[in-house]
Amino acid sequence: MLYHVQIKVMPLKDLLDPQGKAVLGGLHNLGLESVQDVRVGKHITLDIEANDANSAKAIAEEAGKKLLANPVMEFFEIELIN
Amino acid sequence: MLYHVQIKVMPLKDLLDPQGKAVLGGLHNLGLESVQDVRVGKHITLDIEANDANSAKAIAEEAGKKLLANPVMEFFEIELIN
Repeated sequence: MLYHVQIKVMPLKDLLDPQGKAVLGGLHNLGLESVQDVRVGKHITLDIEANDANSAKAIAEEAGKKLLANPVMEFFEIELIN
Repeated sequence: MLYHVQIKVMPLKDLLDPQGKAVLGGLHNLGLESVQDVRVGKHITLDIEANDANSAKAIAEEAGKKLLANPVMEFFEIELIN
């Protein structure tokens, strides 16, 4: 069966996020002063052929660890859609 | 009140996603052959000071339209966390 898995990769909470800071500045310049903080990460969707949901999640977990997230700077969360 | 809003910005479904194709190749090289497709977008979290949830969502919507997503190539979805 084909499973759709979302992986959210975000900068670690304790680290500065220069891209987020740049977006925050841009939003303030556009007049959106009520935005107080911005963090920018990656959103990745995987279509995985697997026998069951747990196998699909395990494959996504492995993809996150081996390729998608850099654990020095980022953490990731997995969510199964179907 | 401070609202946390997530914005997911993804390449339009009908468009090629070269970054996703590159990640797919990388995952296959790592032996994760069961991954059939990958799409890569942005995941942005905004902290927004607003009077109510609807105002916070409206500000996030404006941020998405004016700065965060390029409507020629991307669509975005907003989700309120708290």
